[in-house]
Amino acid sequence: MKTAHLNTLKKLHILNDPIYGFITIPDTIVFKLVEDPFFQRLRRINQMGLSYLVYPGANHTRFHHALGCMFLMQKAVQVLRFKGVLISETEEEALYIAILLHDIGHGPFSHAMENSIVEGISHEEISLHFMELLNKKFNGRLTLAIQIFKGLHDKKFLCQLISGQLDMDRLDYLKRDSFYAGTPEGNINSERLITMLNVVDHELVVEEKGVYSIEKFIIARRFMYWQVYLHKTGIVAEQILVNILKRAKELIESGEELPATESLLYFLKNQIKNSDFDEKTLNLFSELDDYDIIASLKQWKNSKDFVLNNLSKRLLDRDLLKIKLKDKPFSKEFIEKKRNKLIKKYGLTSQEVKYFCFTGVITNLAYSDTKEKIKLLTQKGKIIDITDVSEQINSKALTKLVTKHYLCYPKSKD
Amino acid sequence: MKTAHLNTLKKLHILNDPIYGFITIPDTIVFKLVEDPFFQRLRRINQMGLSYLVYPGANHTRFHHALGCMFLMQKAVQVLRFKGVLISETEEEALYIAILLHDIGHGPFSHAMENSIVEGISHEEISLHFMELLNKKFNGRLTLAIQIFKGLHDKKFLCQLISGQLDMDRLDYLKRDSFYAGTPEGNINSERLITMLNVVDHELVVEEKGVYSIEKFIIARRFMYWQVYLHKTGIVAEQILVNILKRAKELIESGEELPATESLLYFLKNQIKNSDFDEKTLNLFSELDDYDIIASLKQWKNSKDFVLNNLSKRLLDRDLLKIKLKDKPFSKEFIEKKRNKLIKKYGLTSQEVKYFCFTGVITNLAYSDTKEKIKLLTQKGKIIDITDVSEQINSKALTKLVTKHYLCYPKSKD
Amino acid sequence: MKTAHLNTLKKLHILNDPIYGFITIPDTIVFKLVEDPFFQRLRRINQMGLSYLVYPGANHTRFHHALGCMFLMQKAVQVLRFKGVLISETEEEALYIAILLHDIGHGPFSHAMENSIVEGISHEEISLHFMELLNKKFNGRLTLAIQIFKGLHDKKFLCQLISGQLDMDRLDYLKRDSFYAGTPEGNINSERLITMLNVVDHELVVEEKGVYSIEKFIIARRFMYWQVYLHKTGIVAEQILVNILKRAKELIESGEELPATESLLYFLKNQIKNSDFDEKTLNLFSELDDYDIIASLKQWKNSKDFVLNNLSKRLLDRDLLKIKLKDKPFSKEFIEKKRNKLIKKYGLTSQEVKYFCFTGVITNLAYSDTKEKIKLLTQKGKIIDITDVSEQINSKALTKLVTKHYLCYPKSKD
Amino acid sequence: MKTAHLNTLKKLHILNDPIYGFITIPDTIVFKLVEDPFFQRLRRINQMGLSYLVYPGANHTRFHHALGCMFLMQKAVQVLRFKGVLISETEEEALYIAILLHDIGHGPFSHAMENSIVEGISHEEISLHFMELLNKKFNGRLTLAIQIFKGLHDKKFLCQLISGQLDMDRLDYLKRDSFYAGTPEGNINSERLITMLNVVDHELVVEEKGVYSIEKFIIARRFMYWQVYLHKTGIVAEQILVNILKRAKELIESGEELPATESLLYFLKNQIKNSDFDEKTLNLFSELDDYDIIASLKQWKNSKDFVLNNLSKRLLDRDLLKIKLKDKPFSKEFIEKKRNKLIKKYGLTSQEVKYFCFTGVITNLAYSDTKEKIKLLTQKGKIIDITDVSEQINSKALTKLVTKHYLCYPKSKD
Repeated sequence: MKTAHLNTLKKLHILNDPIYGFITIPDTIVFKLVEDPFFQRLRRINQMGLSYLVYPGANHTRFHHALGCMFLMQKAVQVLRFKGVLISETEEEALYIAILLHDIGHGPFSHAMENSIVEGISHEEISLHFMELLNKKFNGRLTLAIQIFKGLHDKKFLCQLISGQLDMDRLDYLKRDSFYAGTPEGNINSERLITMLNVVDHELVVEEKGVYSIEKFIIARRFMYWQVYLHKTGIVAEQILVNILKRAKELIESGEELPATESLLYFLKNQIKNSDFDEKTLNLFSELDDYDIIASLKQWKNSKDFVLNNLSKRLLDRDLLKIKLKDKPFSKEFIEKKRNKLIKKYGLTSQEVKYFCFTGVITNLAYSDTKEKIKLLTQKGKIIDITDVSEQINSKALTKLVTKHYLCYPKSKD
Repeated sequence: MKTAHLNTLKKLHILNDPIYGFITIPDTIVFKLVEDPFFQRLRRINQMGLSYLVYPGANHTRFHHALGCMFLMQKAVQVLRFKGVLISETEEEALYIAILLHDIGHGPFSHAMENSIVEGISHEEISLHFMELLNKKFNGRLTLAIQIFKGLHDKKFLCQLISGQLDMDRLDYLKRDSFYAGTPEGNINSERLITMLNVVDHELVVEEKGVYSIEKFIIARRFMYWQVYLHKTGIVAEQILVNILKRAKELIESGEELPATESLLYFLKNQIKNSDFDEKTLNLFSELDDYDIIASLKQWKNSKDFVLNNLSKRLLDRDLLKIKLKDKPFSKEFIEKKRNKLIKKYGLTSQEVKYFCFTGVITNLAYSDTKEKIKLLTQKGKIIDITDVSEQINSKALTKLVTKHYLCYPKSKD
Repeated sequence: MKTAHLNTLKKLHILNDPIYGFITIPDTIVFKLVEDPFFQRLRRINQMGLSYLVYPGANHTRFHHALGCMFLMQKAVQVLRFKGVLISETEEEALYIAILLHDIGHGPFSHAMENSIVEGISHEEISLHFMELLNKKFNGRLTLAIQIFKGLHDKKFLCQLISGQLDMDRLDYLKRDSFYAGTPEGNINSERLITMLNVVDHELVVEEKGVYSIEKFIIARRFMYWQVYLHKTGIVAEQILVNILKRAKELIESGEELPATESLLYFLKNQIKNSDFDEKTLNLFSELDDYDIIASLKQWKNSKDFVLNNLSKRLLDRDLLKIKLKDKPFSKEFIEKKRNKLIKKYGLTSQEVKYFCFTGVITNLAYSDTKEKIKLLTQKGKIIDITDVSEQINSKALTKLVTKHYLCYPKSKD
Repeated sequence: MKTAHLNTLKKLHILNDPIYGFITIPDTIVFKLVEDPFFQRLRRINQMGLSYLVYPGANHTRFHHALGCMFLMQKAVQVLRFKGVLISETEEEALYIAILLHDIGHGPFSHAMENSIVEGISHEEISLHFMELLNKKFNGRLTLAIQIFKGLHDKKFLCQLISGQLDMDRLDYLKRDSFYAGTPEGNINSERLITMLNVVDHELVVEEKGVYSIEKFIIARRFMYWQVYLHKTGIVAEQILVNILKRAKELIESGEELPATESLLYFLKNQIKNSDFDEKTLNLFSELDDYDIIASLKQWKNSKDFVLNNLSKRLLDRDLLKIKLKDKPFSKEFIEKKRNKLIKKYGLTSQEVKYFCFTGVITNLAYSDTKEKIKLLTQKGKIIDITDVSEQINSKALTKLVTKHYLCYPKSKD
């Protein structure tokens, strides 16, 4: 046994990942950000909200997704540099930080929450608040990352790698969500797509031969929206959660005492807007995660309030409402008839019945040709719009906004 | 457009599964059991406890595992019947029910809980209580399943498919846990192993040619124990949780008020033994899941008690204690020195310091040749012990109990 | 050690498959057909012709594909029976036989060969000749399978499972080819699609909720055509092979002696049409596989004939011609100019130059709405065309025949 | 449409790989070597010889394996540099070249051939001859690669990455072979193992925490040997091929004319030893691949010689001999009895009968502790032998040479 003359200057921090094999932490600042309680909190926020009620494998977290995005970003930097695109070490670090933190502002069951706990504020805005707070903590080291995250960097492609048609966020979440949901139809070849990226005039472009892979990417994304993210059972679960939180707010406003964690109570008692997000609010917000919500539901199912206890129990036991989908809105008469039946059956008020019988709208646009477009680089070095060569993407089926109307109500057996 | 003359007599209930593609619900009784709130509760119990703190992909639930076991059981029934083994339709149904419910008695973060919330009662015993309660609800339909689960059926192989060296539980959990943890080293070819099963004199045997696959299975299991289930970081996390729950009990006994859900408080306030498990206790137990624990920790991290708040915060922020492993016990002197340092540093009592600096033992036996052995069926129709032909399995490395001693304490920077 | 009372009546014949895990041979007749030299010959015919020159993983054989189809057919029978569709044991066996043998008539590098070695005869017709010969050998046991293969069975769905929009052939080859080529974009969820099949009025239908999976299937198929099967490098390789075989025929007709295996020489010397396919011809045909062709090329590369030796060497060393693709035909002038250059450079005749500089056309139609359509079964039990609900499939991009023109010629460095 | 200011300096050459996703060609010299006819020839040599007769998916080639090794080498260079190990760009290139060409000397159905077509010369020696020839062609650019390949470089770890206990060859072939064979039991986590490599005193070491992964690697390798590489059906197929080639040589020596390609005839007519390998011989050798052999068998099955035609037909139709395995040698009497029966049944000479009834020996050693050992780097920086900490690897089952005796003879039905 002898003591080694160690070559190791740096320790390789590695995280296992069922998708990419393993993810390497590129440097110290990233490692420290991963260890920060703000980031660790993402371990307690499900990446796909309540979709696990439809796809039992969908229990992966925003923590893992954020790391996956960073992994892909490392690949992208490697490919672009190989092709001669200049990316400084500072810019590289900023890209990793920005993508790592892009979702840090997500609250519990994100989309449900954006419409109930806070008001008129997106998770991107909250992410920015978090980044700025972390920037203080890390003495300005995040300034460039924030600039890129805000889309304000002159090298537009840096911003596009964070948020754009083919950003690392999308390339990871489609792959990861379809993997965990067990829907291989939504799987995309993220690493392959990255190899076909290039930069022209500071903008991200895709080599022309990648056109079929991009078509596949857009179709897969459309598939995931209709089959997974907007799955009708997922929709009804999410709306029940929104209604539970609305009812809780209503009851609290009317003076009732509801058991809940301190931070959840804060957001139920106050109407928090973007301008309210000072450091104190942010710290309270950072206390919130999926566990507060589900633990509260478990107590609320014993509430005296019929709306609150019934809906809470339904969500916990996955005994959901029925949902119908149509291309056109449901007629007022039809909805009224349904509601009147329920009012009689359960002795509800005309206000309360709306918690059990309600309508809504879901929409999806597979490819927007009005916003930023996907640009192709031809073999001759010209830049063209993808819709110039892909009839597929150019078709109405993909560029038209699809809208569906839904109606939810209790099953007749209930 | 015309109306169909439908052939469909039965609706095929299917659940997506990243591992097997999809899982089919074989019949109505199984479907109803899956829909039961007792079973739905398993959606809120992580299959691997706190291992997600080491392997961020390990967020799958006992709900999914139970369904996976049932999928494999369907394969096993198919293979055995093909080979001429008689399994009646009633026995088939009982096998599906027994394997579906085999883990229904698990509490939150199971193993941690077995040593703190309840006392001297295993999750198998609680599973049995649940099955008996469900048997009432389903008018005796589970009687045969319970007999098999208890290991009391004359056709021993029915019991062995539920609990034995090569039961469907192990065949699913090794595959599933290694898949989600992202440790392909632990992957096993479950469906292949099943094709090599047969029954002789009512006992489960494996065709001789399967010897390498079984060696691989036992090695993979050993790998998973040392690398994943007994990973030192996972051990320290689990012990911190056990200490948190012990401290909470201690504080409650001494008269302090701690915020917690009603059912968790019940188990913290009372010493529940197997004999206490009446219907009321069982119903309270069925209210408990991972969410109660984590939500409580989130409140306890603001407790005035230093032990409770410090340990809770550590677990939530994954700022764990240091852990050292050795083949021999740590010396009393060494431990005392560590503890005295901490007592001074934090002003702890000699009782409190044990929550931060403690020792323990982990053990694993890869293959027990004293209990039920794996039997091989040779091509000539003879039955032999696997250790007769596999030097690998017969080796000390696999048949000797391995014991490791650990010592945990705060990092010096803390 | 004791002798077992064996339950085993049947031995489970299993083949490992990287895609499905393993494939079980369902019964004795299928096992005997698999063992037949006619079927074993498929081990020596690459499933994707010369595509391995583009995708180095694409070395799988028609043997494996045929077994894969049979695996999926077993799943389909299981699902349909579960749903109450009556399939007798005789019909089941016939389905397995028909799908197992559906490709048995493929010659070496199939499509290349259909245009050079034989004339005006498809591999399906040759498959039928093989089946009829095997039917004699097996005393009429294949009669029902042949009827189904010919599309003549009253229960139309039996025929559709063999050849139709969603037949087991397509469901296996798309999955298998994309797997081995390493193009996950073409992967489809075959087993999932099968679970959504049903039968109405003797016709195969898909449950409505499967619409997104079918869209995905059609897009994946389109992807595989343009990106893999019709990959421009694959096209040029195949055309070089066609030209080599044409040249060999030409030389033989003009009296030259060429080294080749006896059976290959037979097909080079004679113009074999469908009506010539008697038992003797079929036996000679059954001697042909990829090895005859490649081994001949290896000898022909030393031929005195420049056309033959140059093209043979090019294919063996993967030193292919250049290929250009356009939406419109190349102008005669442009082609003539290219050819004249070559005539001068290499001293070719105006006949010979066409072997090095030639044009052609490739076409693909993603979804034909004029032939058999995919029918959906709505939840209310109505039958509708998929194009009634899927704008995606209805779009021009998928229902319009796409045609591309290509021009091949030597690289300027040559 | 505008013309781009292209950043692209280098074109990224990418090959799809079902295992790693895709493989990038790192630079121009490697690209040219891949394009060389010597290397392209590897497309026509199956990586696993005749194993596809047992595992129908095992049709991958040495071409693909060589590229896979190079992919892993890129990862290894990246990891070691990250850890501070100095590897110059010249050394990096040499590593890629050496690993790319390490198997270029393989002949058709390699191991069969080493014992029949050439004599007393290993494929490594032939690889070296090829490298030296290529070194001339590339003006000395391969000199460093050759030095490393020969194991003569001072930085021993460079040599160990090419050939050693954990070289890139093994890390790829175990993964690739188990993948294509469809035996996930042999799968290893190659990329993970690479992350745990380090260099101490110029020697390759593994970080201590990798001990379980290495155990897994050695067990997987053992599994692959017994279950796949030395599968009894594969053994008998290989021995039949050896016997066919021996018989062909014998017949040619006795003056018979056998149809075969020119280069195969050369090696059948002459006894080629290592010292005979001049440039001419090497060029003739480079003409040989699997296609020569199989195409010859297809002609030889019509030979007048019973031994040659019978064995050839057996191999082509996969109608193999029976094989029995035992721990001890078969008794002379037993063998003689078998042979005498055959002599009578088929009218064979006592010389000829040995082609149909023969014995042999297979051996495997899972881990050799006498040759180069696997060294671990402890957390404290000490270097220890893996057998010091792994009882598993230290066990007799792994360090003892296992020997099995086999006897082959025709099935009684034949």
